[in-house]
Amino acid sequence: MAKSIDVAIVGGTGYTGCELLRLLVAHPYVRLRAISSRAEAGRPVSDVFPNLRGHVDLNFCAPDAPEVAAADVVFFATPHGAAMASVPAMLEQGARVIDLSADFRLRDAQLWEQWYGQPHTAPELLDEAVYGLPEINGDKLPEARLVACAGCYPTSVQLAMAPALRAGIIDPASIVADCKSGVSGAGRAAKLGSLLCEAGDSMQAYAVAGHRHQPEIDQGLSDIAGEAVESLFVPHLTPMIRGIHSTVYADLRSDDDIQSVYEAFYADMPCVDVMPAGSHPQTRSVRGANVCRLAVHRRGRRLIALAVEDNLVKGASGQAIQCMNLLFGWPETLALEQPALLP
Amino acid sequence: MAKSIDVAIVGGTGYTGCELLRLLVAHPYVRLRAISSRAEAGRPVSDVFPNLRGHVDLNFCAPDAPEVAAADVVFFATPHGAAMASVPAMLEQGARVIDLSADFRLRDAQLWEQWYGQPHTAPELLDEAVYGLPEINGDKLPEARLVACAGCYPTSVQLAMAPALRAGIIDPASIVADCKSGVSGAGRAAKLGSLLCEAGDSMQAYAVAGHRHQPEIDQGLSDIAGEAVESLFVPHLTPMIRGIHSTVYADLRSDDDIQSVYEAFYADMPCVDVMPAGSHPQTRSVRGANVCRLAVHRRGRRLIALAVEDNLVKGASGQAIQCMNLLFGWPETLALEQPALLP
Amino acid sequence: MAKSIDVAIVGGTGYTGCELLRLLVAHPYVRLRAISSRAEAGRPVSDVFPNLRGHVDLNFCAPDAPEVAAADVVFFATPHGAAMASVPAMLEQGARVIDLSADFRLRDAQLWEQWYGQPHTAPELLDEAVYGLPEINGDKLPEARLVACAGCYPTSVQLAMAPALRAGIIDPASIVADCKSGVSGAGRAAKLGSLLCEAGDSMQAYAVAGHRHQPEIDQGLSDIAGEAVESLFVPHLTPMIRGIHSTVYADLRSDDDIQSVYEAFYADMPCVDVMPAGSHPQTRSVRGANVCRLAVHRRGRRLIALAVEDNLVKGASGQAIQCMNLLFGWPETLALEQPALLP
Amino acid sequence: MAKSIDVAIVGGTGYTGCELLRLLVAHPYVRLRAISSRAEAGRPVSDVFPNLRGHVDLNFCAPDAPEVAAADVVFFATPHGAAMASVPAMLEQGARVIDLSADFRLRDAQLWEQWYGQPHTAPELLDEAVYGLPEINGDKLPEARLVACAGCYPTSVQLAMAPALRAGIIDPASIVADCKSGVSGAGRAAKLGSLLCEAGDSMQAYAVAGHRHQPEIDQGLSDIAGEAVESLFVPHLTPMIRGIHSTVYADLRSDDDIQSVYEAFYADMPCVDVMPAGSHPQTRSVRGANVCRLAVHRRGRRLIALAVEDNLVKGASGQAIQCMNLLFGWPETLALEQPALLP
Repeated sequence: MAKSIDVAIVGGTGYTGCELLRLLVAHPYVRLRAISSRAEAGRPVSDVFPNLRGHVDLNFCAPDAPEVAAADVVFFATPHGAAMASVPAMLEQGARVIDLSADFRLRDAQLWEQWYGQPHTAPELLDEAVYGLPEINGDKLPEARLVACAGCYPTSVQLAMAPALRAGIIDPASIVADCKSGVSGAGRAAKLGSLLCEAGDSMQAYAVAGHRHQPEIDQGLSDIAGEAVESLFVPHLTPMIRGIHSTVYADLRSDDDIQSVYEAFYADMPCVDVMPAGSHPQTRSVRGANVCRLAVHRRGRRLIALAVEDNLVKGASGQAIQCMNLLFGWPETLALEQPALLP
Repeated sequence: MAKSIDVAIVGGTGYTGCELLRLLVAHPYVRLRAISSRAEAGRPVSDVFPNLRGHVDLNFCAPDAPEVAAADVVFFATPHGAAMASVPAMLEQGARVIDLSADFRLRDAQLWEQWYGQPHTAPELLDEAVYGLPEINGDKLPEARLVACAGCYPTSVQLAMAPALRAGIIDPASIVADCKSGVSGAGRAAKLGSLLCEAGDSMQAYAVAGHRHQPEIDQGLSDIAGEAVESLFVPHLTPMIRGIHSTVYADLRSDDDIQSVYEAFYADMPCVDVMPAGSHPQTRSVRGANVCRLAVHRRGRRLIALAVEDNLVKGASGQAIQCMNLLFGWPETLALEQPALLP
Repeated sequence: MAKSIDVAIVGGTGYTGCELLRLLVAHPYVRLRAISSRAEAGRPVSDVFPNLRGHVDLNFCAPDAPEVAAADVVFFATPHGAAMASVPAMLEQGARVIDLSADFRLRDAQLWEQWYGQPHTAPELLDEAVYGLPEINGDKLPEARLVACAGCYPTSVQLAMAPALRAGIIDPASIVADCKSGVSGAGRAAKLGSLLCEAGDSMQAYAVAGHRHQPEIDQGLSDIAGEAVESLFVPHLTPMIRGIHSTVYADLRSDDDIQSVYEAFYADMPCVDVMPAGSHPQTRSVRGANVCRLAVHRRGRRLIALAVEDNLVKGASGQAIQCMNLLFGWPETLALEQPALLP
Repeated sequence: MAKSIDVAIVGGTGYTGCELLRLLVAHPYVRLRAISSRAEAGRPVSDVFPNLRGHVDLNFCAPDAPEVAAADVVFFATPHGAAMASVPAMLEQGARVIDLSADFRLRDAQLWEQWYGQPHTAPELLDEAVYGLPEINGDKLPEARLVACAGCYPTSVQLAMAPALRAGIIDPASIVADCKSGVSGAGRAAKLGSLLCEAGDSMQAYAVAGHRHQPEIDQGLSDIAGEAVESLFVPHLTPMIRGIHSTVYADLRSDDDIQSVYEAFYADMPCVDVMPAGSHPQTRSVRGANVCRLAVHRRGRRLIALAVEDNLVKGASGQAIQCMNLLFGWPETLALEQPALLP
C-alpha cells in the first residue's frame, strides 16, 4: 500500500498552497516534486513562506514545468477559473487531480457560470468529479481521478447538518447558516478590505444578497437529504486569521436525542469531533488541525448546531490531503495527526 | 433649559464607568462631582484610566461619600445586584438615577430572580423604572426618576426589529438573533476567558442554553409588537475590543419595501442610521460613537437585519447620557456628536 | 481672532485624510469646503469612510476643483511627491499650506532626493517651509505660509529627546531609537505586508538598513541640540491599528534629575504629558488623542525615554490641526480636546 | 538508544504545560504518564485544553500522585518557587528533572532571592543544575540530572549575542536588548493586564526599572563571553499571542563580516536559523516551531541582531524537549520538526 508518490502543486503562493506544503512535508509517502507560480517562478519557496525554511528546498516553477505534468497527484490551489483550463490535459497524462478551487464543485455548468461569471470550459468533467467531503463521499474517493474539494464554509455547514438531515429530524426548508470566517478566507491577495486596519478590531456581514458558496451548500445539503434543500447562508468577516464558526439553525420535527444522533453519525470518522452536550467549540481548538468540532443544542423547537474548523485545514488543504489519503488507500489521517495550536 | 447639574458615578472602575467619564467631560451642562469605587477609593481616576490624564482630576471616592448622595443625577455602572441596594435611598434624597446595570430592566421580579439567581430587593421600583431605550421610550424619559438603561445586545436586537414589528411585516415567532460581541462586553474583570490569549484570534458561541439578555429582549420586543414575542438569541464572543454585530433573521409576511419601512421609522432619530439598501455595516464605523447603524436585506421570504453598535456607547454609556439629555430637556445628542474612530 | 476659514484637503482617501475630517468636523472656526481624490472623485466621502455618515456631506472632488484653490488653508494628505507639484501655485494664490507628507521636511534637497528617489521640484520652498513640530517650532508657526508637518516616528523621537538634548545631559552620539508602530503607519494602500493575515499576530523590524525618517530625525535632533546628531533609528511593525511606542536610549553624562528636566521643558505644552516617574505609557492611552505621553527612566548610566503617540493624530492629522491653530492664533488645542478612546 | 521512557508533567494547566503536551504526543519514545494540577485534579486534560481532545486521554492528577514520582523524566511547568520544593526528593528517587521555571537558573542563591523575593530552599542543587540552552550547553546536557531551562527572553538575547561575544567583535558593555513579547509570556493567569481589552491593540514597555530576566541574561552572556557582562534589557508587551522579537544593539569593535561569524557559529545547530543578510525575521515564521531565527545588520559602528522565537516553544516547552532529547541521546529535534504555522 505504501508506494511513495510524486506530488505537484499548481498555484503555490496563496495560503492554501502554503498550508499544503506545511502538511505535506510530514507525509511519509509523498515526494514533493514541484510547486508552480506564474508570478514567482524561480524564487525559493522559503523566501515567500519563511516558516518553510529548512523544510522545503524547492523554487517555484512555471505552471507548465515538466515536473508538474509528471506528478502522480496534482493539487490545484488556484483562484477559480484556472484549474478547468489545465485539468483535462493532466488527467489525460494519467495524473490524478485534487482541485481546491471551485471549478468542479457544482455539477450544473449553467449554475456555475451564473455564480462565477464566466463560461465553464470543461463541463464534461463535472459529472466525473467527486465532491471532496470525505465524511459524506468517502466511499467514492478511492476510485476518483478528479476531486473537487469542498469549500470552507460548505464543509462546516454540511458537517453541521448532515446527521440531522439523514435522520430526518429537521425541516430542510428551515436551515439558516450564520457563518463567521477569519480573514485568511479572503486569500493572500492585496485587497483593501483584508488590511489589518480595515478588517481588524471590527466585524461585518458580507455578500448578504448571495455568496458563491450558497449553491454549493444547497447542492451538498440536497445530496445528503435526498431532496431539494434551499438554505439561507450569511457569511461574516471576523477579525482573526484562521477559523470558521458556523452557527446553523433549523426547526426540529422530532423529539429524538440530538446528541445521540450526531455521535452515532460521526462515530467512526476521525476528522469530526462531536463534543459533549452543552459545549461551545472555539475556533482556536482546531487552529492548524484537520478536524471539525461540533456541538449541538436544542432550544425549544429549534436545533442549533455549532461547527468550528480551520478554514485552511479542514476547510481546504487538510481536507485535500485527507482526500489524497483515501485516493491511495492510506490511513485517512496520515500527516494530519497534529493537535491544534492553542493558545 | 441649560442649568448645569451635578453628576456622580457609582462603580467607576469598569469600562462603562470609564466611558461615561470620557463622554461626560465634554458635556457643557455637567459638573462631574464624584466617582466611587470601593476597591480604588482614594486613588486618582487618571491613574486607573490614563486616557483621562488632564481631563479628570478626581480621585475615586467611597460609594457612601456625601458628593454621591448630593448629586442631581447618579449613574450606576455596577455589576447587577448593587444598584437595587442603593437606589431607593437615593431617589428619596431627590436624585435621579440612571442605572446601566440589569437591576431594573425586567418588570417581573420573579423572572429577574430566576435569571440573576438572587432575590430582588427593590421590586417596588420595577414598575416605575423607565426602560432606557430612547428610540422606543423617548416620550417617557423626561419625567423619569429612575432609568433602567437597555442592555447592549437588547439595544441592537430591538432597534433591528422595531420597525418591522411595528409595521407588522414579520412573523414575531420567527425571530432569530445571532449576535457577535467584542470582549469588552465581558467587563473589566480579570477572568480567564477574557484574556488576550484565550479570546484572541478565536471565536465561539456562549450561553447557547440561555443568556440573561434573552428575557430582556423578549420583554422589549413584546412591548414593541404589542403581543408576546419569544425570540431565539445566541451570543458569540468575537476577538475585538468594542462592537456588537447583530444579524437578526425573521420571516416576512408582506411584500412591503423594507428599506422604506426602516427609513420612515427612524427618520427623526439622530442615533440610528439606516444605511442604503445593500449595505453591510461594520462595527468599526461606530467605534466610540453613540449610533446604531442598520441595514436590511430581503432574501426570498426572509428579512435579514444587520445592526452594529459600540457596546460601550450606544449599548451602554452613550445611551445613558442620551437618556440623561432627555431627562433634562436637552438636545438628545449633547456630548454625543463625535464621529466614530476609524480606522 | 475667530474669523472662520475655508479649508480644503488634497488626497482625502487615506487614513490621515479620514482623520483630518474626523477632527475638523468639531472645529468651531473651520468650514470644510473640499476634499479631493483623483480615484474617488464624485463619490460621497461617507461612502468611503462610513464613520463620517451624518458628519461630512461632501463628495470627493478632483484635485484641481476650484474649491480647493479658493481655500484659506489646504492640507496635503498625499503620498510623497504630490504636494511639491501643487504647492507653489497654491501659495501664489494666497492659500496657506499644511503638508502632512514628507515633501518639505528636509531642508537639503539633495538629501531628500537621495532618500525619496526622485527629483525635488520645488527646492526653492525648502528654506521657507516651517517644520511642523509645535513643541519645538511653535514660535515660527504663526507667520508660516507653508508647514511641513513632522513625520510620525520623528515626532515621537524628537519629543522623547528634546529636553535631554537641550539640557545637555546626554551624549548626542549615543541615541538609539527602537520604535514600534501600528500598521496604519503603512497607509490605506492594498499592500501584501499590511494584510491582517500577514501583519496580524506577528512582529518584525523593517528597513533596518535605513528608513526615510532617519534623516528627518537627525535633522530635527541636530536643530534641537545645536550640533550635528547622528542617531540610530530602527522601526518595527506591530500588530495593532494605531499607535507608536518609541523606546529611546541615550548615555547620560550628568546626574541631573531627569524627571525634573522633562517636566520643566513641557510644563506649558498641552499636547505633551510627562507621566510620573516610574510610568510605562501605553499606546492605547493616546488612541485618537492629540497627545504624546512620555516617561523617563534612569538605568545606571543610561537614559531610557518612553514615548507614545497615536501616529494618525499627534503623529499626523492632529498635529497638522495643532499647527493650523497656531497659524491663526487660536488656542493650540482647539478641536483636539477629546480624551483617548480606552479600551 | 530508543528505549521508551515514562514522562510526567507537574503544573500542567498553564501555557507551557499545554505546549509540552501538544509536542510530546508526537514523540516516539515518550509515554505520557501523568500531568498534575492542584486546582484541576480529576478533570480531563482535554476539557481544559480542547485542542488535545483525541490526543491526550489523561485526567489531571494531584502533584503527589505516584505516577509523577515514578516517571523517568519530570517536567516542571510551575510558577517559580514550586519546583525547588519538590525537586530534591524526585532526584533522590532517580527521576531526571527538566524545570521550565526560574528556580535553578541562577547559580547565585542570594541573587535569586533578591530578584524573586523569597528564600531559596534548595541552593545545594544550583551548582549541579545544567542551564538548558542547548546551543551553548549542549555538551553538558547528556549527563544532567537537573536541567534549568533558559527563560524565554534570555534564550533570544543569548542566541542573538553568542556568536559576536565568542568572536570578540563587540564591546560587551554596550549591549542593549529591546525585547517585545506576546501576551502568552505572562502566563495563563487571570490578570487584569493580560485581558484582551487591556493588552489588545496597544503596546507598552514594562519593568523598565529591572526585570527578573536581567540577572539571567547577564549570567548567560558572561558565561558565553568569559568575562563579566552587564547588559541593558527592556521588555515590552505586544498585542499578539505568541512570539518574542528581540532587537539587540551592540558596538562593534571589528570589521569582520558579521554574517559569516553568525553562520559559522550556528552551522551545525538545527534549532537556530541564520537568515540571509538583510533579512527581517517575523515572529510568525516560528509560530509553534522550535527554532530561533536570526538576522544581523551592521549600521555604522553598531551591530543590530534581530532574533525571533516562539516564547512557548524555543522559549520554553520546545526547548525543554530539545534538552530531554539530548539527555537521552536521541536526535535533538525529535518531535520538534513541525514547520511553523503561517499565516
